[in-house]
Amino acid sequence: MLLKSKIQFIIEIDRLKQVLRQSLVIAQDEAGSSRRENTAEHSWHLATSVLVLASHSNEKLDLLKALKMALIHDIVEIDAGDTYVYDESGNETKKEREQKAAQRLFSIIMPPLGDELKALWREFELGRSSEAKFVAAVDRLLPLIANTMTGGHSWKKHQIRAEQVYQKCQVIASGSDELGDYAAELIESATRAGLLLES
Amino acid sequence: MLLKSKIQFIIEIDRLKQVLRQSLVIAQDEAGSSRRENTAEHSWHLATSVLVLASHSNEKLDLLKALKMALIHDIVEIDAGDTYVYDESGNETKKEREQKAAQRLFSIIMPPLGDELKALWREFELGRSSEAKFVAAVDRLLPLIANTMTGGHSWKKHQIRAEQVYQKCQVIASGSDELGDYAAELIESATRAGLLLES
Repeated sequence: MLLKSKIQFIIEIDRLKQVLRQSLVIAQDEAGSSRRENTAEHSWHLATSVLVLASHSNEKLDLLKALKMALIHDIVEIDAGDTYVYDESGNETKKEREQKAAQRLFSIIMPPLGDELKALWREFELGRSSEAKFVAAVDRLLPLIANTMTGGHSWKKHQIRAEQVYQKCQVIASGSDELGDYAAELIESATRAGLLLES
Repeated sequence: MLLKSKIQFIIEIDRLKQVLRQSLVIAQDEAGSSRRENTAEHSWHLATSVLVLASHSNEKLDLLKALKMALIHDIVEIDAGDTYVYDESGNETKKEREQKAAQRLFSIIMPPLGDELKALWREFELGRSSEAKFVAAVDRLLPLIANTMTGGHSWKKHQIRAEQVYQKCQVIASGSDELGDYAAELIESATRAGLLLES
């Protein structure tokens, strides 16, 4: 049954709340302690940020498509886990692991909706459409903001150099020149503040 | 500056990740333990579920509007906290607390976008438009699913009776007859399984 297959998918993707990322949540809890962000709450933050920042996209945006993309862009991490952007060996196998995950997860929902969502995920991965470029830009910007707000936590932990961040953040300007300029400012001041190693 | 006001909003709403709800996350962590769901990850789960279930709405839906609504529907909890649906005294003061929160939070973003988002939140609260009714239906369905999947955790904790759940879940059928029927089935079998007190 179509409805039952959708409910099964909704229960399955609950597991994204247990996938941990490298970034810390900016806000501390009541006891004043920090914790790692999970991929479900990140996906909410991303989709809401895409909604808020949409007018800064370089290219004309289909906002509905961009929001759908943001909501499902990381669902594959349920099976494939989160791969840190600076983890070179992890990124070598990432594509294959995520492909397999997409195959399993999106076929829980009966066609055509499951196929539509899988195509949307693939479009994000390809990074060619205006929506894919803009969502990827905001997806790259958020950990930059989180890092500067949490004393460079994941940068310091992994001894990241400013040059590496500049390189990974080129994708931001490709989706939005304005956000690209803002990202460059953030990286500069983070480097001056010693949150990033000088190149 | 418009962009800076948006970034400030994006940083501010990060705090939604620290607001805890009554429901447990369905999936357990690696150590096999459960934790309470936060409102940010709930908002992602809701928006994604609205996307997946949209075709079951009783009335014609503007999906873009419904997704925007789902993303921002609980942002006021940053100031007002989460009010449990069966907490009578909390619900008496909820409206005023949330109104104040909406005033503060949505005015962080310069107009017209901040006003647009506030109007969308108000429309959700009024519960009259097809989008407001459908988002509210799915918002009510998700904790029902979570409760049945986690041994009736928050129902047992607060000694909730089946009758109370039936009453609160009427909002589901008002957004979607099919989801309403499904919710009724869930409540019946939860009552038979002893997860809810018989009325």
